[in-house]
Amino acid sequence: MSSQNYRTEKDPLGKIPLPEKAYYGSQTQRALDNFQISGRRFPRSFIKAQGIIKAAAAKTNMELGLLPDAVGQAIITASEEVIEGKWDEHFVIDVYQAGAGTSQNMNANEVIANRASEIAGGATDTGRIHPNDHVNMSQSTNDTFPSALNIAAVENIVHGLLPALFELQQSLEKKSEEFKDVLKSGRTHLHDAIPIRLGQEFYGYAGTIKECYEQINRTTDALYELGLGGKAIGTLGNLDPNYPPKIIKEISSRTNLPFREPENMFSFMQNRNAPIRVMMAMKELAVHLIKITSDLRLLSSGPRTGLEEITLPSVQPGSTIMPGKVNPAILEMTHMVCCQIIGAEASVTTAGTASQLEINVMMPVIAHTFLDSIEILTNAVATLVEKCIAGIQANEDTCNHWMEASLALVTGLSPILGYDKASQIGMQADEEKKTLKQVLEEKGMLSKKIEKALDPKGFI
Amino acid sequence: MSSQNYRTEKDPLGKIPLPEKAYYGSQTQRALDNFQISGRRFPRSFIKAQGIIKAAAAKTNMELGLLPDAVGQAIITASEEVIEGKWDEHFVIDVYQAGAGTSQNMNANEVIANRASEIAGGATDTGRIHPNDHVNMSQSTNDTFPSALNIAAVENIVHGLLPALFELQQSLEKKSEEFKDVLKSGRTHLHDAIPIRLGQEFYGYAGTIKECYEQINRTTDALYELGLGGKAIGTLGNLDPNYPPKIIKEISSRTNLPFREPENMFSFMQNRNAPIRVMMAMKELAVHLIKITSDLRLLSSGPRTGLEEITLPSVQPGSTIMPGKVNPAILEMTHMVCCQIIGAEASVTTAGTASQLEINVMMPVIAHTFLDSIEILTNAVATLVEKCIAGIQANEDTCNHWMEASLALVTGLSPILGYDKASQIGMQADEEKKTLKQVLEEKGMLSKKIEKALDPKGFI
Amino acid sequence: MSSQNYRTEKDPLGKIPLPEKAYYGSQTQRALDNFQISGRRFPRSFIKAQGIIKAAAAKTNMELGLLPDAVGQAIITASEEVIEGKWDEHFVIDVYQAGAGTSQNMNANEVIANRASEIAGGATDTGRIHPNDHVNMSQSTNDTFPSALNIAAVENIVHGLLPALFELQQSLEKKSEEFKDVLKSGRTHLHDAIPIRLGQEFYGYAGTIKECYEQINRTTDALYELGLGGKAIGTLGNLDPNYPPKIIKEISSRTNLPFREPENMFSFMQNRNAPIRVMMAMKELAVHLIKITSDLRLLSSGPRTGLEEITLPSVQPGSTIMPGKVNPAILEMTHMVCCQIIGAEASVTTAGTASQLEINVMMPVIAHTFLDSIEILTNAVATLVEKCIAGIQANEDTCNHWMEASLALVTGLSPILGYDKASQIGMQADEEKKTLKQVLEEKGMLSKKIEKALDPKGFI
Amino acid sequence: MSSQNYRTEKDPLGKIPLPEKAYYGSQTQRALDNFQISGRRFPRSFIKAQGIIKAAAAKTNMELGLLPDAVGQAIITASEEVIEGKWDEHFVIDVYQAGAGTSQNMNANEVIANRASEIAGGATDTGRIHPNDHVNMSQSTNDTFPSALNIAAVENIVHGLLPALFELQQSLEKKSEEFKDVLKSGRTHLHDAIPIRLGQEFYGYAGTIKECYEQINRTTDALYELGLGGKAIGTLGNLDPNYPPKIIKEISSRTNLPFREPENMFSFMQNRNAPIRVMMAMKELAVHLIKITSDLRLLSSGPRTGLEEITLPSVQPGSTIMPGKVNPAILEMTHMVCCQIIGAEASVTTAGTASQLEINVMMPVIAHTFLDSIEILTNAVATLVEKCIAGIQANEDTCNHWMEASLALVTGLSPILGYDKASQIGMQADEEKKTLKQVLEEKGMLSKKIEKALDPKGFI
Repeated sequence: MSSQNYRTEKDPLGKIPLPEKAYYGSQTQRALDNFQISGRRFPRSFIKAQGIIKAAAAKTNMELGLLPDAVGQAIITASEEVIEGKWDEHFVIDVYQAGAGTSQNMNANEVIANRASEIAGGATDTGRIHPNDHVNMSQSTNDTFPSALNIAAVENIVHGLLPALFELQQSLEKKSEEFKDVLKSGRTHLHDAIPIRLGQEFYGYAGTIKECYEQINRTTDALYELGLGGKAIGTLGNLDPNYPPKIIKEISSRTNLPFREPENMFSFMQNRNAPIRVMMAMKELAVHLIKITSDLRLLSSGPRTGLEEITLPSVQPGSTIMPGKVNPAILEMTHMVCCQIIGAEASVTTAGTASQLEINVMMPVIAHTFLDSIEILTNAVATLVEKCIAGIQANEDTCNHWMEASLALVTGLSPILGYDKASQIGMQADEEKKTLKQVLEEKGMLSKKIEKALDPKGFI
Repeated sequence: MSSQNYRTEKDPLGKIPLPEKAYYGSQTQRALDNFQISGRRFPRSFIKAQGIIKAAAAKTNMELGLLPDAVGQAIITASEEVIEGKWDEHFVIDVYQAGAGTSQNMNANEVIANRASEIAGGATDTGRIHPNDHVNMSQSTNDTFPSALNIAAVENIVHGLLPALFELQQSLEKKSEEFKDVLKSGRTHLHDAIPIRLGQEFYGYAGTIKECYEQINRTTDALYELGLGGKAIGTLGNLDPNYPPKIIKEISSRTNLPFREPENMFSFMQNRNAPIRVMMAMKELAVHLIKITSDLRLLSSGPRTGLEEITLPSVQPGSTIMPGKVNPAILEMTHMVCCQIIGAEASVTTAGTASQLEINVMMPVIAHTFLDSIEILTNAVATLVEKCIAGIQANEDTCNHWMEASLALVTGLSPILGYDKASQIGMQADEEKKTLKQVLEEKGMLSKKIEKALDPKGFI
Repeated sequence: MSSQNYRTEKDPLGKIPLPEKAYYGSQTQRALDNFQISGRRFPRSFIKAQGIIKAAAAKTNMELGLLPDAVGQAIITASEEVIEGKWDEHFVIDVYQAGAGTSQNMNANEVIANRASEIAGGATDTGRIHPNDHVNMSQSTNDTFPSALNIAAVENIVHGLLPALFELQQSLEKKSEEFKDVLKSGRTHLHDAIPIRLGQEFYGYAGTIKECYEQINRTTDALYELGLGGKAIGTLGNLDPNYPPKIIKEISSRTNLPFREPENMFSFMQNRNAPIRVMMAMKELAVHLIKITSDLRLLSSGPRTGLEEITLPSVQPGSTIMPGKVNPAILEMTHMVCCQIIGAEASVTTAGTASQLEINVMMPVIAHTFLDSIEILTNAVATLVEKCIAGIQANEDTCNHWMEASLALVTGLSPILGYDKASQIGMQADEEKKTLKQVLEEKGMLSKKIEKALDPKGFI
Repeated sequence: MSSQNYRTEKDPLGKIPLPEKAYYGSQTQRALDNFQISGRRFPRSFIKAQGIIKAAAAKTNMELGLLPDAVGQAIITASEEVIEGKWDEHFVIDVYQAGAGTSQNMNANEVIANRASEIAGGATDTGRIHPNDHVNMSQSTNDTFPSALNIAAVENIVHGLLPALFELQQSLEKKSEEFKDVLKSGRTHLHDAIPIRLGQEFYGYAGTIKECYEQINRTTDALYELGLGGKAIGTLGNLDPNYPPKIIKEISSRTNLPFREPENMFSFMQNRNAPIRVMMAMKELAVHLIKITSDLRLLSSGPRTGLEEITLPSVQPGSTIMPGKVNPAILEMTHMVCCQIIGAEASVTTAGTASQLEINVMMPVIAHTFLDSIEILTNAVATLVEKCIAGIQANEDTCNHWMEASLALVTGLSPILGYDKASQIGMQADEEKKTLKQVLEEKGMLSKKIEKALDPKGFI
């Protein structure tokens, strides 16, 4: 929309020039002028959700006899175009904007009103379709913005993050099965511990991802509450009591997702608890993904100066200066995304504490951060599966080598010799840099029973 | 135990002097010497849970034929004394201690072993009962420490935090009912909004607390998993497969709480996911308690220079210099506890990311922070109910006064005059510091219909 | 670069197709394929800083006789084009990428190498200019990436954030001067306190911003350290010892900023302490900006149901449903940006803890988050000054009204009557909803001395 | 004070029973009843600082002719006893208490007033010395509480934390010197990197600690500001303008620390910026201590299944089940303390955002968390030096072994063969599990020049 001509609009604060071809109007333009902060705008999924609400509201208002059919129909057609993404470039407001997202809601109202007026055009005599009186009818920023957030988030979680996580769980389970016969030394405190199967370690990872999947899935339930009809502060006032169930049914039917009315409308208006809760579930995942990816980097450390128990697929050269180096780039990327998620949770909860009385005006930063987190986590997890986990190979010889060397096999002597005696043998082997068997032999203690007690397979 | 005599013990690292009357032994003494950090020790509830595990382990080991009856019986008796709190002063180790809590487990092992030896005394010829070989039989720090944490946490949540939260919810609901006829102005962005009932605001608070109660309750489910039998790294090794179900059944029966085996033993060993998850649920509560207590401070602001819509009970003089001042001290204390909880979550999750391979050695800081958080939150919530919420009174006249003055009643004109015209009237009233009716009258627009549209009761 | 033709390149991992017109090469292409995470790329300022380093390195290498003049000159020309922003669209890699930013460094190396080869073209017989051997000569990702970050950050702080903060401080000081005669009631605990000048409150705000300015300025000093010459791990190896001082002098001269060698090269390589430290200083600012903007929202609350001691400039309509409403949108936006900064600090420090041995591979997420934070904070602060602070007006009558009503004036009686007696009078006035003078008169205690002691002006 | 008798006191809120022997009075008793939250009280250092202020205030008030000598002298004597710790058990209020710490200040006022009355006893006829009118004269909670915090914090930092950190820096430098000839393989991304000296790694650690020391030292400067004389809200009112400089001079002289008046009294009253800033500097240290202690755990991993490049001193047995195991317990404890510090910073800054208008009532939680953080960090650092760093030993053979094996030596070939060719050789060696020399020999490329380029010593 560069080198453009301008038109002038008037609103309660006075006249304001706008790009001639902009579908948005004066309030959007004011917000555009006011908020030049990050250059980032709300994502496709959020704009789509705004369109879904506007279309459903128009339909419901028509059914309740509040909106003339010609007006309502034009609004629905315009909203459908917004849903398809046809007018995305007219959604222009920075994510850091007016409290509660008033500007974002007005942007939708104005784009739809102007486009609907255009559609209604010669065909009707309804004249101009009004962004507030018609498009925003029975609504407020305070009930539509958080509802749009919930719709966008649910779609992205149900169709994106959860399937990606399920793939990760399955991929880890597959590796767990594949590595079930690879015996290795366990390590606790990064010190020699008793033997374990490589498959058991991956089985643990799979279990942790499953727990995180379930927690995200469970907490997502709260996002299905749509406070539509709550208007500015939760009081329905003279709104038709059929409006909330009708509009929510319409949205559920369209999205094929079971949205519902809030259990407590005033709590819904006062707080953004659902995104906060799901954000925490994503942080739970981030905490454990940091653990798992760090483990995999440790197990694949080397090739010559580390543990090298597993080998990761090579995805790109690792160093600009050390030729031939291949780094665990996908694991590192995942870890970095997790650092971002941990920060995102801090942003969202800090914003959560700032709610005051009837609403929490921090909604835009909550929405932006939350939706962004879902997106980068989904992509990171999908990339992790495809470009790393699926291609991990076990180095069985190296695993066995470490296991045979481990001093922790001395644990097997405890039931026979007692903890104190066994300790002495372990420490002597350590100090004299000998194997346990060497020490036992020197002491004349090596019997068949003892040898059996030291067999790694006996531990597993 | 001051001005004491000393005895000497020997362990794998050499000789060490101990207070003569100490029931703990050499490993505890070493840890006591090593860790002089905070002066804080693990709480009663944790020591009790350690005792419960040690007694249940002895019983199970006896039933499985692993432990002679005389030894097992003495261990059980000694453990019961630990459960009762008889030897709390012999649990001496700083909460900042050896990774995984090895020192804390050895402290229990040693106290119980020494006391059990004393009990077994002349009556048997079992000789000395060994802290590792007997008291710690079939166990490891790595499975007992997190299990003790879970037991202690569940007891404190189920019998402490959840009942306190339920009281808070009920207290808010009672106020909601009591204030249901108190009409007042809503406020969004701290600006005039349409009318609301004071009871509706409190109904919102009650709903939010209910959501937090349910989230804490739901997440607590994860704490019922006890990884007993997982020993050092999750492999049962040559452990009797009946051990885990038997010991967990014993603990469940004794505590009357439905503990169970972990769905995935390796995940249980690798991570402390349950306390992390519940800690987050407590942070969710903290975020919203900050909102609610801040609201109540705002609504009770004054007595002459604020909103003064409600009056809090006076609990103590508020100022050392301004006589007669009474501050919202209980609300402020609650807010401060919530700041602590928010920090505690950061500590626990930072520790959560530090897990490596088979276990997370950060368990002691997780346990200390988590149990401390449950305790201060429980006490803060109980105090909040008793000394603040229950005694809140509404100042109906003040509420009405603000409502009548609110310019947001202009919203009622929108359906009649349209958003643009209504906006002009609202802004003119604001600028000219007049009431809406004055402006409408001057414009000759004041009709019965308009007057009705401005009636606050029509909004609710 | 859509609907494009492809060329094929070969690198150590094999053949790979590339867009024909892309200046980047195989390693960039691999990273592009590997990392489809957020769609966000490193900002202009970072790419510019990469160009500055590449040009300076070429110049230094030439002067040290390591790089043929024709090759070096072509690299310099190409780097200058990168500095100007001519090839920004060829810097294509997601901010969540390979650890340490290897991909980002290779992107610069490849774009410059290809463009330099093109420039060198027919004119020389140097043949192809190599991204590693020539453009990256004497460098590594591990020394250039963090140095580019420091250069970009210093430029944005020195030329952006600090000037914006200074304007904020001055704007607040100006208001402080403007409001120096506006007497009002102080409020502590949101309760009546003794009188204060509105100018004193703003003087406090100005002082706090000054402290934050100074802290950001002081901590920025650490960013002047450039670890160039540290190569992969801090050992210069066979690098000419003149290289580090020469290249840093070149960069300082070009940017007119006093960059210097690190005091401790190994610490520089191991940690990203400078951005962590400055990030914390920005969080310090965010904490206090939340306080100041919250205060201003409280003081401007109303217009009819709040304190209304000040009036903010109207920047846009405030509600889609309540006509005529004007909200504190700029203050709310600033608060939201501060929530983001608080989260950003958590991301950066979480990444900081993940350093291992010779380097911290989390550099890309640190760089992205840190540079983004500088940008949004700079824009938010500049917007805050221009669209809010500069236009704040005091409502002196309202200020005086609250002050006269305040019960805290009773403090003036303490030196005369003692704390206990004064307390009784204050509490009686509160309970009986009378003024202090009324109560004193009823008690026959109202003397000239007492009246003088209650005069608000005596408190200030 | 168990099984005690009671006396009754009266205050503005009515009568209240107190333990007969308690030196505290009614307001303390009310707070004691109101706040049963954590069982933790403010530490010795804070009570001492309260005593210092009370003594200095009495002296200053006497010198300004405001306080009769007999009263002032008795207050000074009683305050000196508080400074010595004689009445610590009479400072009974939970750290989670009334906003701003009013209860804590009254506790000091009441203990000193009652003890001073006792001291003044028969010897004078001044009668009862009043906690507010006499002990708190010229003061308020709002200026004395944060000043006491600053005094306590400075004392603990200057005499505790900074010396401990300096010892840590020196200890690391000593090791750096000791290990300067130990050649080893560097590791980046946990992958083979070019050689480095073990001493250089420790030199990096020492440098990082030095930076943290300097940052804590620099930020501590802000704590030297004492807002005494600011009273309730920063306005001195009718206070003698000589009071602030006189009392601060008195405190500086007594503590031998250069306290000063705030640059901006209103900013001092509004925010607790100094503790927030120093808390962040401690978090900076925590971030890097996590890195350093994690590195040391990685380098000492083993004894048979890890890198084992260094050996830590054995301080206690490491496992209750694996005999002979010795864990890095001191490093783990330090890491755990750092997790706590990271959470503490979140608590303190969350409290920092909650400041409102003239003061931040969250002072008690800031004070408690901040002082506790200084204490545990000081003890952890001192323990780290004494029980771990000082006794670290290098395993030179193991270091050399890894270095010789490292594939990163291929970097030396780059200047001779070019990056691409060198890469091929590195990757071939990796795939065929051969040494670089083997591959070069097979290819007939092994020359003297090449051999020299592969010599580890050439890299350092």
